[in-house]
Amino acid sequence: MTPVDHDALLATARRFVREEIVPLEATLLGAPWHVAEPTLNALRVRAKALGLWAPFLPAQYGGLDMPLDAFARLSEVLGWSPFGHYVCNCQAPDVGNMELLLAFGSDAQKQEYLEPLARGEIRSCFAMTEPEHAGSNPVQLSTTAVHESGAWVINGHKWFTSSADGAAFAVVMAVTDADETRRHYRASQIIVPLQTPGYKLVRNISVMGEAGGGWASHAEVRFDDVRVPTGNLLGLQGHGFALAQERLGPGRIHHCMRWIGICERAFDLMCRYATTREVAPGETLATKQQVQFWIAESRLEIHASRLMVLDAATRMAREGQESAREEISYIKVFVANTLQRVLDRAIQVHGALGMTDDTPLAWWYRHERAARIYDGADEVHKTVIARRALRPYLEVAPRIPREH
Amino acid sequence: MTPVDHDALLATARRFVREEIVPLEATLLGAPWHVAEPTLNALRVRAKALGLWAPFLPAQYGGLDMPLDAFARLSEVLGWSPFGHYVCNCQAPDVGNMELLLAFGSDAQKQEYLEPLARGEIRSCFAMTEPEHAGSNPVQLSTTAVHESGAWVINGHKWFTSSADGAAFAVVMAVTDADETRRHYRASQIIVPLQTPGYKLVRNISVMGEAGGGWASHAEVRFDDVRVPTGNLLGLQGHGFALAQERLGPGRIHHCMRWIGICERAFDLMCRYATTREVAPGETLATKQQVQFWIAESRLEIHASRLMVLDAATRMAREGQESAREEISYIKVFVANTLQRVLDRAIQVHGALGMTDDTPLAWWYRHERAARIYDGADEVHKTVIARRALRPYLEVAPRIPREH
Amino acid sequence: MTPVDHDALLATARRFVREEIVPLEATLLGAPWHVAEPTLNALRVRAKALGLWAPFLPAQYGGLDMPLDAFARLSEVLGWSPFGHYVCNCQAPDVGNMELLLAFGSDAQKQEYLEPLARGEIRSCFAMTEPEHAGSNPVQLSTTAVHESGAWVINGHKWFTSSADGAAFAVVMAVTDADETRRHYRASQIIVPLQTPGYKLVRNISVMGEAGGGWASHAEVRFDDVRVPTGNLLGLQGHGFALAQERLGPGRIHHCMRWIGICERAFDLMCRYATTREVAPGETLATKQQVQFWIAESRLEIHASRLMVLDAATRMAREGQESAREEISYIKVFVANTLQRVLDRAIQVHGALGMTDDTPLAWWYRHERAARIYDGADEVHKTVIARRALRPYLEVAPRIPREH
Amino acid sequence: MTPVDHDALLATARRFVREEIVPLEATLLGAPWHVAEPTLNALRVRAKALGLWAPFLPAQYGGLDMPLDAFARLSEVLGWSPFGHYVCNCQAPDVGNMELLLAFGSDAQKQEYLEPLARGEIRSCFAMTEPEHAGSNPVQLSTTAVHESGAWVINGHKWFTSSADGAAFAVVMAVTDADETRRHYRASQIIVPLQTPGYKLVRNISVMGEAGGGWASHAEVRFDDVRVPTGNLLGLQGHGFALAQERLGPGRIHHCMRWIGICERAFDLMCRYATTREVAPGETLATKQQVQFWIAESRLEIHASRLMVLDAATRMAREGQESAREEISYIKVFVANTLQRVLDRAIQVHGALGMTDDTPLAWWYRHERAARIYDGADEVHKTVIARRALRPYLEVAPRIPREH
Repeated sequence: MTPVDHDALLATARRFVREEIVPLEATLLGAPWHVAEPTLNALRVRAKALGLWAPFLPAQYGGLDMPLDAFARLSEVLGWSPFGHYVCNCQAPDVGNMELLLAFGSDAQKQEYLEPLARGEIRSCFAMTEPEHAGSNPVQLSTTAVHESGAWVINGHKWFTSSADGAAFAVVMAVTDADETRRHYRASQIIVPLQTPGYKLVRNISVMGEAGGGWASHAEVRFDDVRVPTGNLLGLQGHGFALAQERLGPGRIHHCMRWIGICERAFDLMCRYATTREVAPGETLATKQQVQFWIAESRLEIHASRLMVLDAATRMAREGQESAREEISYIKVFVANTLQRVLDRAIQVHGALGMTDDTPLAWWYRHERAARIYDGADEVHKTVIARRALRPYLEVAPRIPREH
Repeated sequence: MTPVDHDALLATARRFVREEIVPLEATLLGAPWHVAEPTLNALRVRAKALGLWAPFLPAQYGGLDMPLDAFARLSEVLGWSPFGHYVCNCQAPDVGNMELLLAFGSDAQKQEYLEPLARGEIRSCFAMTEPEHAGSNPVQLSTTAVHESGAWVINGHKWFTSSADGAAFAVVMAVTDADETRRHYRASQIIVPLQTPGYKLVRNISVMGEAGGGWASHAEVRFDDVRVPTGNLLGLQGHGFALAQERLGPGRIHHCMRWIGICERAFDLMCRYATTREVAPGETLATKQQVQFWIAESRLEIHASRLMVLDAATRMAREGQESAREEISYIKVFVANTLQRVLDRAIQVHGALGMTDDTPLAWWYRHERAARIYDGADEVHKTVIARRALRPYLEVAPRIPREH
Repeated sequence: MTPVDHDALLATARRFVREEIVPLEATLLGAPWHVAEPTLNALRVRAKALGLWAPFLPAQYGGLDMPLDAFARLSEVLGWSPFGHYVCNCQAPDVGNMELLLAFGSDAQKQEYLEPLARGEIRSCFAMTEPEHAGSNPVQLSTTAVHESGAWVINGHKWFTSSADGAAFAVVMAVTDADETRRHYRASQIIVPLQTPGYKLVRNISVMGEAGGGWASHAEVRFDDVRVPTGNLLGLQGHGFALAQERLGPGRIHHCMRWIGICERAFDLMCRYATTREVAPGETLATKQQVQFWIAESRLEIHASRLMVLDAATRMAREGQESAREEISYIKVFVANTLQRVLDRAIQVHGALGMTDDTPLAWWYRHERAARIYDGADEVHKTVIARRALRPYLEVAPRIPREH
Repeated sequence: MTPVDHDALLATARRFVREEIVPLEATLLGAPWHVAEPTLNALRVRAKALGLWAPFLPAQYGGLDMPLDAFARLSEVLGWSPFGHYVCNCQAPDVGNMELLLAFGSDAQKQEYLEPLARGEIRSCFAMTEPEHAGSNPVQLSTTAVHESGAWVINGHKWFTSSADGAAFAVVMAVTDADETRRHYRASQIIVPLQTPGYKLVRNISVMGEAGGGWASHAEVRFDDVRVPTGNLLGLQGHGFALAQERLGPGRIHHCMRWIGICERAFDLMCRYATTREVAPGETLATKQQVQFWIAESRLEIHASRLMVLDAATRMAREGQESAREEISYIKVFVANTLQRVLDRAIQVHGALGMTDDTPLAWWYRHERAARIYDGADEVHKTVIARRALRPYLEVAPRIPREH
């Protein structure tokens, strides 16, 4: 394989996003999924033609074989638009499921689920969080999967199952070994085709004013005596949490990369507006020191975010996920909060316009408020960081209880 | 008139809001206006029956004759629900228009516009902000009204004309005296019935994901050769800005009062959830020190907000608006920012649930982001405060340029 | 007694502080105590002559009989200079000891200790905190007082015994009832004349670069078999904590009042410097938006602080300390943090000059860092506020453990 | 030359600082300079013996020839103690003067001034800031140097001339070309031996409570008709600002490196205290979530600081100072503010102990408040960042005025 000219690829991606995706944003953001989908599919065809398809996948699955740190750079470019990742088939939650299948899937599972996902023919979802239990404590899980005459029989209630609407299958986290004394070895991950009887999409949850639809939705779902073949177990029995961790590590880096892209877009909109909007004849917003300082602080924080994300991605690519765990917690907290601040400043600079859907700022302001919550809230990651930092000081001294 | 038993009235209002309005919130928040309106009208009938109608209006217009500081206490109670003020007919922008008409309207104007508004038969709007000019600089105005054969002929483009959809009339700010050298005496306020030819509602602007409708909307509108009788001039010609200031002063206090109500509701939701949501068996969120500190900081800031709002309202009631100008700027900045922080904390405590429309938190988080922007952005009020504070130090020293 | 004309008294105090105390500050702040004391004594003579002596004391003890809310206004005026309170004999820790003696002292104690304190002839100190135990947990106390043949025999180690150097006596908190099951009834307060054998001032602790001396010092002290008559017990045996609480409540209000005075002085220095210091020919610091916003934020926060302190003082004066407990926690947190921010901004505006001792800013920056620590750290008060706020929500639900 | 084993060198430095310098800190911090100096000189002998002398200097001057990014790592280790840099002869302001002499000094200047500095036999200072002018505007300068019969005759008033007390010479910034129209080419740098008649050290300025002395001081100085040979001109005439910039660039990186060292020390003290100080029997401060979060936030911010400083140092080492200008502004703002926050948190965790000089925290809290002021205040660097960020958006659009 010829080595990819990474800079050229980034330039291509940048042009593609800005010239072909951004102009369609206004239409796409307001549209129901079934209206938006054909346009997005057409863009996907372009992405393939431009050599931007599934950058994280191995070449044998049609991807670009990009290591994590290279993907980080690209991901930032795609994050410039809310649709960049979808168009290049590297959007959550499918990207995580593809990585899982790639690493832990059997040959049959790869053929049945990974290949069509990799080609962009189907979508998938990941059913972990339960409304009855705090997402921050993965050990509290009520969904069960019981082994019964050659099948897993699944019963449970999940929510925030993103993109379940229209998905072909879900990866479901369920307790398979309730009596296991090691609490982290009680659950497994099981692939559930969503046409299976007993599965029900209760509702697309209305989130920040929008129930959304299709890929752009978060469902509440139920599994009532859902039966799937035993071959649908993903990885080893009892290894559900281990797999979830495997999935979450790179997943958090993916999110952080994407958030930097959003920050850069918000920054661009802020500078653009500040230098053109007049507050008095001949005097733009950019002449105001407060606006300048917001711009400076945003620039600084984005710079810090990028250095930390690239550092974490490089470490994970080289030394594996466990070794980068602390760095992942750093960026999960820092970049999510930078994102919220940069969006807030960009909106404030835009004034009333910032409140409208005439820019994508309000969309991100609403939906990315979740950045400080999902995949471990700020507080969970701070506890992780503190526990690691204090470890050398705590030999015989009192222990800090584990955060869930 | 028998003096109102204010405490009893507050208790009535509290029960009404919590027992009759709150249970309908979930339905009302998601519904289109035409679906919500009948329910709201039924609640309005109840409000009248309970003696909670139009608290700020004189008794002769069917109101409760409440001074500003008493209204502040009630407003907080009503702010507990997004519909409290509407149901009691003291919602923006009608409340401001009623106050304007009461203070500056001719007898004919009062009869034609104030009386049906006071009875809740019609709605109104206020058309000031223009998309082409920064709202923070009221002197920059392109809309014109030309005196021509017994009529005002109005041409202009406005946006963020809240509640224009379905309104019977607008109060329009337009330049009537372009050659006036005193820049603040160029504009006038004119009443425009919205069935007048030449008026056009361009769109309900999509704000934070919702175009909304009816009262719950913010329109972009156009006036193309709209002709209204000269008798529709509100107050004196050239006094448009003076009237706008008269309208904005109490208006800002009204908003602040309402925001405290929202803060209290968010606070209640946060405490309720914190004390019931388990993060581990037998261990609720309320046992987490960070959650406790968010609760403490919120409590403290709400307390400070309330003291400042009551202080400003009392001063305005006693000494008039001009004398309370600085205090109004204090609360506009402080309470709007407290509101944003309290909502943010309440959402973080709720986790994923906070992102959903299963509580009103997300609705406020989206729509009240504007609190730091409208009626003078944070930055405008800080400039006002600084200018006043520095005045005694600047005698012959260099002057600080006036903020727009 | 003729009623005091409070406004006239404030004006007198203001003139006195600004014209007679402030000009001596530069000399006093750098001088050792024995050099500063004669100058301060001369100022005390002036304070008496001006009718500003001991404002909180009853007239029979030579004071002004001022209720707490009136004293709050005066205290702010005195706080303008680091020496204002000392000069008017209302400085900590003597003010707290005088209040204790007034409320709980026997006639003999009043005659022997209160009267000379009230006349300003002696100084005193309060020995509570122990280096071995967190000050935030008053129940952890190692100092003991054993009843033995008509005397209390005291053994213990204290620090941050402010103003012990040169004091005539200490009020010492010591465990007298170690077996008492109610943990808050184990300690008592005992008056210890400091010439008693067995008492030792180990050192004036070097705090933020200064060991200081005399009133302006914080000592580490030891009590080794110190014997005092049983009549030196202050209040009831076992009521040490109750008395400490009685002392701390108004004490916190006193501090907050004084901090507002410091804030106003820092604010004045900031505005004065901002309007005179040129950053370019003809352009002062006050033309910078950031400087204006610091001024505005400081003005706003001082306003909020004052309203809250007056509210708490009024409530305590009217309804007693227990009823104002929550309000006291609000102000202890809010005003201490406002103080730190205002000082920080004032220093930043002054640039290099702000680092020097050419203004009192650096002195306060150093010594008032403790404002967030003593008399209950921020974290302790936040816990108090949260516990109260959550109480109505916690009926059968899990309890939050008590903060120490 | 054998390549240095950098890791071994860092380990040596770490051992040296912790085992030989830190134990002497308590004595050194409180001592007058003349008492501290012999101890420090003895430590310097050790530093030479351990191969830690003058790491940034070329081998021919007795140094370690370390590039900036390697020095960054070492500097962090030395910053662990307030005396680390001095002991290794890489302390400000001498390090900057040595760099200047190395780059721009004549052979004679190198021999006379650089060589004894490099050997640690003399000390030097840098006289730039003037009390009459804002340090943020280097163009405002009153000190003049007039060329007169083979000598420069210097007249002027400077302050914050750090370490002037006992220094052998000063590098003085003075206007030599007042009529030059290019404002940045009016001043030159001139070497002034401090025994020259007309030079006067007015005072060691009392800074945050300490006038200090010797190296640990900041002087106000005067030059009245001070005559030095024309050969004392450093670099080209009129290039004073250019040289100052050359000096400031690496100087800012040096400070940032050192601040990270201070952060790490404060972090270590905070963790150590948190895990040992009991707030109740068997319960340490480290069990408090707020303390854990302060630790986490500090860890995160130190991590971000280090990545940014290394990035800036690497860029400067590779591409030169001009190319790293933006990165230098990033770190000057971010690390100085991180430092202030980390110190503040560490003090709060220590409670009353944090206020004392029993740890070095209070010393840094006082003296490093200046970090946000010197070498360009936060506000100056934010303006630099904003101007660069906005440049691409401002082609014909209104310009932002240059910050001084």
